[in-house]
Amino acid sequence: MERVDEMAPAPAPTDKLKEEVGKVMEEARELQESGSSLLWKISNEEQSLRQKAVSLESSIRRVRYLISSLVTQKLLDRDQVSKFEEELHRASCIISDGDAATFLPAKSQGRFLRKFLGPINVRASRKEVQLKVKEEYNSYRDRTALLFLLFPLVLLTLRSWIWDGCLPAFPVQLYQAWLLFLYTGLAMRENILRANGSDIRPWWIHHHYCAMVMALISLTWEIEGQPNCAQKQKGVELFLQWAMMQGVVMLLQNRYQRQRLYTRIALGKANRMDVVWGETSGVDGQLWVLCPVLFLMQGFEAYVGLLLLKTAFVGVVPKWQVICCGILLVVMAAGNFINTIQSLMTKSRFKAKMKRSKTKQELD
Amino acid sequence: MERVDEMAPAPAPTDKLKEEVGKVMEEARELQESGSSLLWKISNEEQSLRQKAVSLESSIRRVRYLISSLVTQKLLDRDQVSKFEEELHRASCIISDGDAATFLPAKSQGRFLRKFLGPINVRASRKEVQLKVKEEYNSYRDRTALLFLLFPLVLLTLRSWIWDGCLPAFPVQLYQAWLLFLYTGLAMRENILRANGSDIRPWWIHHHYCAMVMALISLTWEIEGQPNCAQKQKGVELFLQWAMMQGVVMLLQNRYQRQRLYTRIALGKANRMDVVWGETSGVDGQLWVLCPVLFLMQGFEAYVGLLLLKTAFVGVVPKWQVICCGILLVVMAAGNFINTIQSLMTKSRFKAKMKRSKTKQELD
Repeated sequence: MERVDEMAPAPAPTDKLKEEVGKVMEEARELQESGSSLLWKISNEEQSLRQKAVSLESSIRRVRYLISSLVTQKLLDRDQVSKFEEELHRASCIISDGDAATFLPAKSQGRFLRKFLGPINVRASRKEVQLKVKEEYNSYRDRTALLFLLFPLVLLTLRSWIWDGCLPAFPVQLYQAWLLFLYTGLAMRENILRANGSDIRPWWIHHHYCAMVMALISLTWEIEGQPNCAQKQKGVELFLQWAMMQGVVMLLQNRYQRQRLYTRIALGKANRMDVVWGETSGVDGQLWVLCPVLFLMQGFEAYVGLLLLKTAFVGVVPKWQVICCGILLVVMAAGNFINTIQSLMTKSRFKAKMKRSKTKQELD
Repeated sequence: MERVDEMAPAPAPTDKLKEEVGKVMEEARELQESGSSLLWKISNEEQSLRQKAVSLESSIRRVRYLISSLVTQKLLDRDQVSKFEEELHRASCIISDGDAATFLPAKSQGRFLRKFLGPINVRASRKEVQLKVKEEYNSYRDRTALLFLLFPLVLLTLRSWIWDGCLPAFPVQLYQAWLLFLYTGLAMRENILRANGSDIRPWWIHHHYCAMVMALISLTWEIEGQPNCAQKQKGVELFLQWAMMQGVVMLLQNRYQRQRLYTRIALGKANRMDVVWGETSGVDGQLWVLCPVLFLMQGFEAYVGLLLLKTAFVGVVPKWQVICCGILLVVMAAGNFINTIQSLMTKSRFKAKMKRSKTKQELD
């Protein structure tokens, strides 16, 4: 009976509803229109930006050619050249890293990402998102370094404390699976950073590919137990010790690298997407503390690799996994060593150059 | 001596260079300015689109509430309701799938992608890129299905032909590593499709997580050889046979699913991001051919799982890997079965509805 009162002032409730639905459809149409007009506007402006970028690139090429021809004619001195080169470098940075870079066609992302993700674009369109990706990568590395230290430490402690000097297979395999996941994630994130304009050295990514393969191989590697456990598990033990060392070095590196990155950003020398995963470039002042540790670690890595190869060829554990892991470790150690040296050389060249220009400024 | 002629008409070659460099810097500044003004424009318009979308969403909610209150008051009949509901559905599709959707904040991408890729956005901003992703996913599945069929076929053929009925460990482990890579890639691509608006059922992605874990576990599972090879390798053999069957089914499914997708697009029933990986929904007319094959395969999957569990508990191969793989296979079979049934039920409900409205139209 009460309902009658409510119904009374609504002679045609469906009319009101029809009107409301009409309003909704109107709003939806508006949304659709604004969206498509924005898309259209962007694609137009993209076109114009692309043309500007192409013309700028050809201008830079032309001027570089002009400079080099003037240099061969000895009409330019070194100071002038370096001043002009610097300006041109700044111009090409604007193409690859300025606000317009977002709208230019991306560099190819490499086979690795394409294999896993398909042809999706992983380049962030806004600088703040790119920086978020970079920050997250740094904090991921921090968390990772801690686990890198703790996981083998726990395994080795439990081995002597509970497991009577003989590692059971399951925890070791869990650790290896974690390594596989970790290295895959790192390789992906670094490929993504590269697509977003970071200048990470390609070797550190390749290093992670090697590490992925090694983790995969080590999963198929049977962990044998008693009898003669200590002898059979020598390789695993060495590997775990090396991993702990790596964990400590990673923690040190991360700290100094981040500090240095912030300094470099403050000085305007680097865009914030620079990542130098790995063994050197993040440490500058502390370089002479870290360098010996790095070389020691690389030496230890090669030593573990050679030891594995020896056991394989002497015939204690004649499995293909042992040979593959041995070779991979030696390759990784050698690659790390070469790239550390190269980084140091670039760094010292850069320093010498800075010093030269500073002295010259003082003389002037 | 010839050089003098070239130098003669250039009284101040550095002046020309200076001018050229100045022009380059001018162009660079222009590029930078157009880029940042476009970014600014986009972020402004995004703001306005977001407001429109929010207001549209609240309007839809309000109208839905109005409809349900009119229904409880018995002032609307079912036909009217379904007509209004259809319009509202179209409006909400515009929010989630129209041209404006590109600029609205993306749905969360899920833990899986975040773990591997970090906080990068995998949503394509343009419809044509989204469609390219989808197309590539389809062709990836085609290639995959072929390998899915060939890889175990080759292994089983070589076993009886060259390897005297006893599979060596390495090729099997290679196959398992490939499976791990494959399922990881599929899970990633499907997560990406989901982020791009596909309505793939979550189970098919979870199914791939299970398969990833199983591939990982099977890698740690030692492949034993002689003596009693046939008995010890029974599980592997059954698994390979099942994989071959799966390959054939996948090939059939892909063919019909793509056909059906194109039909659905043509009919305007689906946006082209819809993917229905797996066991049913892509087959419609051929459903009564495929359904028995699907149920047979799920039955076989559960049978292999139970057989593994039996061998584990009887004690022939008392390893944790056997138990885990057994449980995973049974879980996957059950999940596949339930989801196939649900898909079929949705489909038949949809058909019944279509039939009803068609009959009604004819009566009218």
